[in-house]
Amino acid sequence: MSKAQSKSDIDVYMHGLGARARDAARRMMRADTGMKNTALAAIADTIEGSSESLADANRKDLDAGQRHGLDAALLDRLELTEARVAAMAEGLRQIAALPDPVGAVSEMNFRPSGIQVGRMRVPIGVIGIVYESRPNVTADAAGLCLKSGNAVILRGGSEAIHSNLAIARCIHRAMAESGLPADAVQVVETTEREAVGALLRMPEYVDVIVPRGGKGLIERVSRESMVPVIKHLHGVCHVFVDDDADLEKAVSIAYNAKTQRYGTCNTMETLLLADSVAEQVLNRLGAMYRDAGVEIRGCPRTLEILAEARPASEEDWATEYLAPILSVRVVADIEAALDHIHRYGSQHTDAIVTANLVKARRFLAEVDSSSVMVNASTRFADGFEYGLGAEIGISTDKLHARGPVGLEGLTSQKFIVIGDGHIRK
Amino acid sequence: MSKAQSKSDIDVYMHGLGARARDAARRMMRADTGMKNTALAAIADTIEGSSESLADANRKDLDAGQRHGLDAALLDRLELTEARVAAMAEGLRQIAALPDPVGAVSEMNFRPSGIQVGRMRVPIGVIGIVYESRPNVTADAAGLCLKSGNAVILRGGSEAIHSNLAIARCIHRAMAESGLPADAVQVVETTEREAVGALLRMPEYVDVIVPRGGKGLIERVSRESMVPVIKHLHGVCHVFVDDDADLEKAVSIAYNAKTQRYGTCNTMETLLLADSVAEQVLNRLGAMYRDAGVEIRGCPRTLEILAEARPASEEDWATEYLAPILSVRVVADIEAALDHIHRYGSQHTDAIVTANLVKARRFLAEVDSSSVMVNASTRFADGFEYGLGAEIGISTDKLHARGPVGLEGLTSQKFIVIGDGHIRK
Repeated sequence: MSKAQSKSDIDVYMHGLGARARDAARRMMRADTGMKNTALAAIADTIEGSSESLADANRKDLDAGQRHGLDAALLDRLELTEARVAAMAEGLRQIAALPDPVGAVSEMNFRPSGIQVGRMRVPIGVIGIVYESRPNVTADAAGLCLKSGNAVILRGGSEAIHSNLAIARCIHRAMAESGLPADAVQVVETTEREAVGALLRMPEYVDVIVPRGGKGLIERVSRESMVPVIKHLHGVCHVFVDDDADLEKAVSIAYNAKTQRYGTCNTMETLLLADSVAEQVLNRLGAMYRDAGVEIRGCPRTLEILAEARPASEEDWATEYLAPILSVRVVADIEAALDHIHRYGSQHTDAIVTANLVKARRFLAEVDSSSVMVNASTRFADGFEYGLGAEIGISTDKLHARGPVGLEGLTSQKFIVIGDGHIRK
Repeated sequence: MSKAQSKSDIDVYMHGLGARARDAARRMMRADTGMKNTALAAIADTIEGSSESLADANRKDLDAGQRHGLDAALLDRLELTEARVAAMAEGLRQIAALPDPVGAVSEMNFRPSGIQVGRMRVPIGVIGIVYESRPNVTADAAGLCLKSGNAVILRGGSEAIHSNLAIARCIHRAMAESGLPADAVQVVETTEREAVGALLRMPEYVDVIVPRGGKGLIERVSRESMVPVIKHLHGVCHVFVDDDADLEKAVSIAYNAKTQRYGTCNTMETLLLADSVAEQVLNRLGAMYRDAGVEIRGCPRTLEILAEARPASEEDWATEYLAPILSVRVVADIEAALDHIHRYGSQHTDAIVTANLVKARRFLAEVDSSSVMVNASTRFADGFEYGLGAEIGISTDKLHARGPVGLEGLTSQKFIVIGDGHIRK
């Protein structure tokens, strides 16, 4: 498409994609597990066999990125190394190996009227994915949507357009061989920003939007979308060390939750400590964090215990650092910890360390987050760790999918009724 | 509140309701099953014991309705007869008798890392209900939200404001006695239209909106809401009589699905007939529909068979009549029936009559509606008939709840993780 496109041209183009996706979705509903797995394996083979053409396309994106002054971190994310191409193929084979959620019937029961009522898991229909930079999302997201029987419209970042289209060509070639409709995976070919707006405004063709990227993207999509959104927001995750915690385990969990990786949404950002154990825990953890280069921002009581800590501001309690920085607050008890999490948390992942059953039970029931943990590191909040297989992201919404979203989150359940001529009296 | 309110006054008022609902929701999460059931029983008793004050309040609404020229049907829906007050109380007792969905833990499994991962069913938080005329919705919706552990903000029609507030007073009195927060059930006291807009624009306080009413209301809510919506749209429901149908059963189902009640969303609006059986079925059904006063609007082939039928227009196929009118179309086969339903259906409820397993299986898998049936009347699509107990409505959306929405649809599932000091390697 030409660079100079009017809004209405883009609308027409996007509606064309949408109509084709809707048709393809109907055909995807009929695709059986064998066909889908064969296609996934064929896509993996095609991608592996196309490393040269993928590298060529990726080179164009990298050159353009350099010309436009993308920073080193973004250029790194954009790069399709040989190892990353192999990882994409491997990811698709893993998706093929997952159980197919489509068609599963649960809770099929007879009712007093004589009808049998159950629920059948079915594809959602058409998924729109809006994402930034990493081209591997094109293959991952396409694979998850395909396995769950959906059609997908992928809208990646303009900086990765050549890489994304090259991956799409591999997907189309493999799908044609496997008898699945190529229109089930479409990559938006225009880089105009308005194309995203059009995608968000066609509920007749798109059933759900999954944005993957920075806060700005997620907020724009949530604000503009006329289609339901499955969101992956930021995580301000807490670990609360209770009076009755095993302090060895508390130290180990608090250290792991902060330092195992700094840039992930399930990394702990605030450590809450019951007053009675605060000094003991902080004396040990303080040294460990110091060695790891983690900066501590603390409440007044924390500052008394740890000389090197800086005072935390009100803003700190609500901040996702994604960096070697940690807020620490000493609280009176579990009640105060629950209040703090309710006020400053992002409903992502929060953990308590305690050996007390009553308090564990209360924390599990009352913390309103997508993952709530007892005696485990927040870093476990992840589709693979939970046994869902690959994930499309982590949802902090309450409706539909909550927490890590895998294949099941890309399906819905409808009611099915079987009778033998039954009528309602 | 005074009648002359500025938009910002209303926003302030609604934000006050929202903040109190959010606080109450936190307390409702802690309410155990016994407390909730006690409260429901107390509300039922209080409502039954207040029939005089309810009648007085209702009289004000009826008088105002007459002054404003409401038609007879609307006035009838507005009236709180003694029988209807008793039915409200009975409905609340039935909700008390339903199993409590909150706290149920499912799929708790050990993972290779040693953590246990499961899902816990929890309240959504704050539900906003926007509804029209029938005051009994105030008690029904409050009861369902309360039992599912949520706080609710109820916005009924202005024509029922005195009745709704009188019911709310009964609810508050009973909840105070039961130790539950009165703010868990709040009725919007202003009748200004702008209050609905404000309710739809406070995602910080409201987690989901459930509109109940006519098409205009549902469309307005869907368009304006910044909060996820559980929608109950119209139903253009189909029955398809296949070549391999038992024609006795087909006739019985097609007659029941149309005539058992005309005004419900699960009533059949279009009958599709396989060519090979059309004449036989229509000859019998034609006479039955004639006796019942049902007008037939048919395709050309239908007109050849039934002399009294009028030609159906393109618009007829997409119309929910809610009246003794039926569209009839003769189709070549199941493929053509699926095409028709895909094109004109409203994804509510559709049924096939067939003794052929292959075709039954195909219809169940490929019809993308909230309820799909084999050899049963579409009139069964209902929360009570499905065994969900009372329903808040029927959702034709694909995300979250689909089909009849009962207590479970007012909850969500979060992940819970139990470890013993587990950290991620």
